[in-house]
Amino acid sequence: MTQTLAVAVRQRVDDWLAAFESALRARDIPAAAALFATDCFWRDLVAFTWNITTVEGRDGVSDLLTATLDTADPSGFAVTEEPAEAGGVIEAWIRFETATGRGTGLLRLKDEGAWTLLTSLRELKGFEEPLGVARPQGVAHTLSKGRPSWKEEREAESQELGYGRQPYVVVIGGGQGGIALGARLRQLGVPALVLDRQARPGDQWRNRYKSLCLHDPVWYDHLPYLPFPRNWPVFAPKDKIADWLEMYTRVMEVPYWSSSTVRSATFDGDHWTVTVDRDGESVSLTPKHLVFATGMSGKPNIPDLPGADVFRGEQHHSSHHPGPSAYAGKKVVVVGSNNSAFDICGALWENDADVTMVQRSSTHIVKSAALMDLGLGDLYSERAVEAGVTTDKADLIFASLPYRILPEFQIPAYQAMAARDADFYARLEKVGFWHDWGPDGSGLFMKYLRRGSGYYIDVGAADLVADGRVKLAHGQVDHLTADSVVLSDGTSLAADLVVYATGYGSMNGWVADIVDQATADKVGKVWGLGSDTEKDPGPWEGEQRNMWKPTQQENLWFHGGNLHQSRHYSLYLALQLKARYEGLDTPVYRLQESHHKS
Amino acid sequence: MTQTLAVAVRQRVDDWLAAFESALRARDIPAAAALFATDCFWRDLVAFTWNITTVEGRDGVSDLLTATLDTADPSGFAVTEEPAEAGGVIEAWIRFETATGRGTGLLRLKDEGAWTLLTSLRELKGFEEPLGVARPQGVAHTLSKGRPSWKEEREAESQELGYGRQPYVVVIGGGQGGIALGARLRQLGVPALVLDRQARPGDQWRNRYKSLCLHDPVWYDHLPYLPFPRNWPVFAPKDKIADWLEMYTRVMEVPYWSSSTVRSATFDGDHWTVTVDRDGESVSLTPKHLVFATGMSGKPNIPDLPGADVFRGEQHHSSHHPGPSAYAGKKVVVVGSNNSAFDICGALWENDADVTMVQRSSTHIVKSAALMDLGLGDLYSERAVEAGVTTDKADLIFASLPYRILPEFQIPAYQAMAARDADFYARLEKVGFWHDWGPDGSGLFMKYLRRGSGYYIDVGAADLVADGRVKLAHGQVDHLTADSVVLSDGTSLAADLVVYATGYGSMNGWVADIVDQATADKVGKVWGLGSDTEKDPGPWEGEQRNMWKPTQQENLWFHGGNLHQSRHYSLYLALQLKARYEGLDTPVYRLQESHHKS
Repeated sequence: MTQTLAVAVRQRVDDWLAAFESALRARDIPAAAALFATDCFWRDLVAFTWNITTVEGRDGVSDLLTATLDTADPSGFAVTEEPAEAGGVIEAWIRFETATGRGTGLLRLKDEGAWTLLTSLRELKGFEEPLGVARPQGVAHTLSKGRPSWKEEREAESQELGYGRQPYVVVIGGGQGGIALGARLRQLGVPALVLDRQARPGDQWRNRYKSLCLHDPVWYDHLPYLPFPRNWPVFAPKDKIADWLEMYTRVMEVPYWSSSTVRSATFDGDHWTVTVDRDGESVSLTPKHLVFATGMSGKPNIPDLPGADVFRGEQHHSSHHPGPSAYAGKKVVVVGSNNSAFDICGALWENDADVTMVQRSSTHIVKSAALMDLGLGDLYSERAVEAGVTTDKADLIFASLPYRILPEFQIPAYQAMAARDADFYARLEKVGFWHDWGPDGSGLFMKYLRRGSGYYIDVGAADLVADGRVKLAHGQVDHLTADSVVLSDGTSLAADLVVYATGYGSMNGWVADIVDQATADKVGKVWGLGSDTEKDPGPWEGEQRNMWKPTQQENLWFHGGNLHQSRHYSLYLALQLKARYEGLDTPVYRLQESHHKS
Repeated sequence: MTQTLAVAVRQRVDDWLAAFESALRARDIPAAAALFATDCFWRDLVAFTWNITTVEGRDGVSDLLTATLDTADPSGFAVTEEPAEAGGVIEAWIRFETATGRGTGLLRLKDEGAWTLLTSLRELKGFEEPLGVARPQGVAHTLSKGRPSWKEEREAESQELGYGRQPYVVVIGGGQGGIALGARLRQLGVPALVLDRQARPGDQWRNRYKSLCLHDPVWYDHLPYLPFPRNWPVFAPKDKIADWLEMYTRVMEVPYWSSSTVRSATFDGDHWTVTVDRDGESVSLTPKHLVFATGMSGKPNIPDLPGADVFRGEQHHSSHHPGPSAYAGKKVVVVGSNNSAFDICGALWENDADVTMVQRSSTHIVKSAALMDLGLGDLYSERAVEAGVTTDKADLIFASLPYRILPEFQIPAYQAMAARDADFYARLEKVGFWHDWGPDGSGLFMKYLRRGSGYYIDVGAADLVADGRVKLAHGQVDHLTADSVVLSDGTSLAADLVVYATGYGSMNGWVADIVDQATADKVGKVWGLGSDTEKDPGPWEGEQRNMWKPTQQENLWFHGGNLHQSRHYSLYLALQLKARYEGLDTPVYRLQESHHKS
């Protein structure tokens, strides 16, 4: 931009912000709504709504403001860096305040008015995190008799927590989600306890098949506060990420119980009673809030197949697959054709098993390199880092694209991937692999958001199928015999091992197990946008169902997703919990409704 | 600066660099030397000299260039950001290349010419570190039979190292120094092995007295590659820093043997034979290079006192003090009045011991807050971070002030501390405490560089002495009786415990123990600048004796110091070792001479 243009752009943003603030201050909702374009989206992350929600159109803006303006009492809107203009859209980073907190936002302005507005709560006034200049001293410089050391304080705390002193929040599940949330709650001074049934933090990764690596790249995967160092591999092997999670838990002082399985939880209208088997000891916890961070994938789907009881070989769900080492020379049938199926087929083939993949429905595949380059590269890559796109900025840019229109932004990237890897897709087609690009061609990330399944990020195993080194069969499994898997069309596949890479149910399945079916039904399906596409029934929600926000069950929350989501959305969940812990008023706008039981 | 002035400043730097490069290219040493001011200093960190050395005056510049110019073959001098001018001195960040590497520098230009020049080697051409865009992939995206996982590779490596495969470098000592060097060598692909006698990384801190905290602030203490997070305390408690070191060793994949004590080492002119007791097993290692990272403090000084054998109480050196818990109600005499003495006296007093400090000679005390603010704040503080002074920049600025003139820069800061805390010093004087500001008033950091002792950074215990809560006695210890410490003036101090906070010898004492006395004598005293002040005899060296650079014993190196030095100077030591590992020519200019045996 020329200097003159830059000044004009800045002036337009300043004018818009001044007009918006003035309308809000005057409680003139029609004037505020009129500052938006006809087609517009306002996504709020906890700043105005104490919810994660997107409103659409000027009516949506009016509705949100009518409900929230008096309590939010916003002010102080200002740009935080020089806005940029491209293709008729001005993009401006902004800050603002509400009655209770400080926020960051991203505004996209068209000629007609605001096209998209993201408002995100960053901190609560009076409860700022002790970071940077506010970091703890670590030691008092006045000596006093009986002063305990840091280690003594930590030991006393860990002995009391859950016994003499109850946590305010219990987090069930200590993978990346639980750990990231635990770190944020500790930072915010909210007494919390993360529970995990495995022996060590990181075992959620360690105990999976040996060839597993992250399919998302390092720039996408940083945890809060402590980013990976610059020598961290692009795709971390599972044992390396496990070590990182273990050490992160320790150095961030996350209160964490390993070898702890939750047996039950009940809510009495005031607090939860959570019964935990802690390494053989039964402990009763009474937190105010309960967070399920048990993996966005929920409970394993294990098909109930005729003949499963007569099959003489071994059979297990992909989540319990121990890796290939015991299966050299064995016949293996892997049911499913998504991420886990490919990973497991690949590792088995590398270990000289005779592998057949059973594809039951079509799968979307993108090559990892193409996805990195065309799908994530602008936000999460070394190139992005060099262009000044910090992790936090990338998260906010990503969050600022409303889910309603996100497919439009995604489709061109996947068209480019199709062109770039045309030979690869032709080879897959030639062996009869059923491939799709999503119901609207919007590719992988939309499939992830809508249904959390139906895709494979190719890190090499797709070539095995395309080359016939891993055999391919099609259709549903009809039944098992003593030594084979029989498909609906009568095809019989000899098998020493059957792996069910058949995915996972909704996270409220865990609620049914741990709380009760009625609560699970009341909360309803977790995950999905309501896009009315396969496995994501409508009505349109516009946000991930039940994730990181209040649910129909008071004081029950869901947290999880990939490392990116665990990092970014743990902030909003932690702030919601902190506000409640401090007794702030948190009126929820548009509480999530429940339309589907699972 | 106005824009016009900035352009003029930039032009002067550009002109100087062009003239310098042109003179160097023409091998016109007089012309190059004439570009320096009469009083000038060129400090080179391995870039030109394969040494850490400072030359003074135009003659020094000529001498350095005469010896190094042909092999260094420097070029590509250019500024890397806009230079700044203040008080008649222009400060410019520069880059340059040599035949073998790329360097960074800091140039200070006066009207007469270059006043100070720092040249620092950052990487070797062709052997750049795999960082950022060059980071490892973590996984191969082509599957192949028998491909080992990351975990299998790591396990195989750790089983072979030291047995089937010899390390090129053995580092004795796995505190922060050994760990930082180990991390850098791993990054550079130099097979190395760090040995430590303790059971776990971090035990060097864990096993010390319970109230111990770092006396240096967090900004000064970052390790390479993985900085502390923004919530890290200013002064980390010992167990917290221990946890960090342990996790750092793991996530940086530093090859590390715990519970391993080096029994002996001999050099045959080609390689070392190092005999190690590894948890009861005797292992023989044959590295090319041996690094002593056993702590810059060297071996404990334990005074040989008459009556020590008849004393019926307990007595130990400060390095073996277990903390105060067993000494409530006991009479304790602490011999010494420096950092450890104050820390131990303070913790004992907090635990209700009856404590007397025996001051044998004068001590320099600064209050921690004053030191942070006036001594370090411009380079290592939140304020510095906010002003864009990264850790690496701070390290280079600090390194760019030649040791010869560093006292001049230090004196005003300590004069300001004296004024700021005048009441405190008056109180100390009133109880008879012998206080000094260093032989030339240059304060703490010069004492640290010259002798590594003679000071206390006050984190609270000095008040106990000033208030008489910790009693003070003066003079040398003459002898012990069955139940007391008797001073030269006849004063008798009843004692159940005597702590010898009597400091440490030179690091070459470890060489005498592990190699032999002849080698220790050949190498000579380690540490100190040759300032001809107390405990730092001349002649003037201008650099820390024997630290991080070639010594009189071929293939024997010393590494250590505080966390700042462990971080920064480990780079230069690692690059020197890497160059030798790759068979590069590394002619050493002005090899350190030995003038003192200890």
